Amino acid sequence: MGAVMGAPTRRTRVRREPEYGVYDRAAIDAILDEGLVGHLGVIGDGGQPFVLPVGYGRDGDDVLVHGSTASRLFRAAAAGAPVCLTVTLLDGVVLARSTFSSTMNYRSVVVLGTATAVTDEAGKLAALRCLSERLAPGHFDYSRAPLPQELKATTVLRLPLTEASAKVRRGPPHDEADDYDLPIWAGVVPLALTAGQPEPDPAVPPDRPTPPHVREWARRRTR
Amino acid sequence: MGAVMGAPTRRTRVRREPEYGVYDRAAIDAILDEGLVGHLGVIGDGGQPFVLPVGYGRDGDDVLVHGSTASRLFRAAAAGAPVCLTVTLLDGVVLARSTFSSTMNYRSVVVLGTATAVTDEAGKLAALRCLSERLAPGHFDYSRAPLPQELKATTVLRLPLTEASAKVRRGPPHDEADDYDLPIWAGVVPLALTAGQPEPDPAVPPDRPTPPHVREWARRRTR
Repeated sequence: MGAVMGAPTRRTRVRREPEYGVYDRAAIDAILDEGLVGHLGVIGDGGQPFVLPVGYGRDGDDVLVHGSTASRLFRAAAAGAPVCLTVTLLDGVVLARSTFSSTMNYRSVVVLGTATAVTDEAGKLAALRCLSERLAPGHFDYSRAPLPQELKATTVLRLPLTEASAKVRRGPPHDEADDYDLPIWAGVVPLALTAGQPEPDPAVPPDRPTPPHVREWARRRTR
Repeated sequence: MGAVMGAPTRRTRVRREPEYGVYDRAAIDAILDEGLVGHLGVIGDGGQPFVLPVGYGRDGDDVLVHGSTASRLFRAAAAGAPVCLTVTLLDGVVLARSTFSSTMNYRSVVVLGTATAVTDEAGKLAALRCLSERLAPGHFDYSRAPLPQELKATTVLRLPLTEASAKVRRGPPHDEADDYDLPIWAGVVPLALTAGQPEPDPAVPPDRPTPPHVREWARRRTR
């Protein structure tokens, strides 16, 4: 902790394939601002690590993570247990001339540190707005606002981006020099998380139109 | 450990939103056999959890995880440190009438336990075939086979599915009863990881056709 932002610490320096390591905040933010789900690592009973899929959002120099007040792991994280939040965007399958060089194209961010719980009502409301905007921009102002009892039932963790790094692999395969002469096709099958047409809840009256923010969300993620 | 397969242990029982908990092996296997990337939790120096994106594959009653011999975290896992492998498939954004009830549709599997390293050459070769088939079916037999030094540079961990659970959320939002009267659109924007057209490595001669297994891979993941 306490590292200069943008400079890797001993713990965040990308050791494996260091040529893929990225430490500038703009690159880290761009990955965080594109993902929809993160994976939160917390140590549970008996030293067992748990990895949970979580909603998250970036609020300036912090990431906010959304959980339930009733979750033991979230309570442990809120009490200061060390955590790791990893966000991975899968961009393609890299099919090399050799099995060994075949890999994935991806962009991932790893954030290490200690989280604090957002406890005051105004802070929780602002945090839920941030988390909701990551999930679906515009839906917070469109939908029914959180009630006090809903805020109470929600744990929001704030994790500073002080110790964060990204790893990015893109482009064609890197094969061994000799393998380029083999009569083998190599390349990338690009992948993206794409949206289909919005599906109204069956309880929504058929004459109620899909609101613009939902249509826009789906449009932006259509291949 | 030692739990009856298909029955939740104290550690794998889904506590939050237990109605989403799934413990039958067929459902767990189906999720594992659709994902392309997992998130492996391992405890590093100073009790810091790390969550790493990893390639994986299912080999019967085990999952295999692919890493580098040079990674300290993989060495710790191979030496018997407890691990958690989580695989999450994102199926949609659930836009409810309230912010609080808005969520994601997803299918996730959590595997807890202790891994062992696959150390013999034949076992590693079989494991790499399994991992390669998860990434891109048919590419192992098509591409140049692993060399002994490549097998040496690869760590494959074998993690039994003894302690595994799944969590599945699907369908429309579950809003509070009163909220159904609000004049608000609610529904799901479906999401899927979809493939684009295969992109040949620029070093591949232009007259070399995309092989059938690559075309089929892209076709199966095209929306």
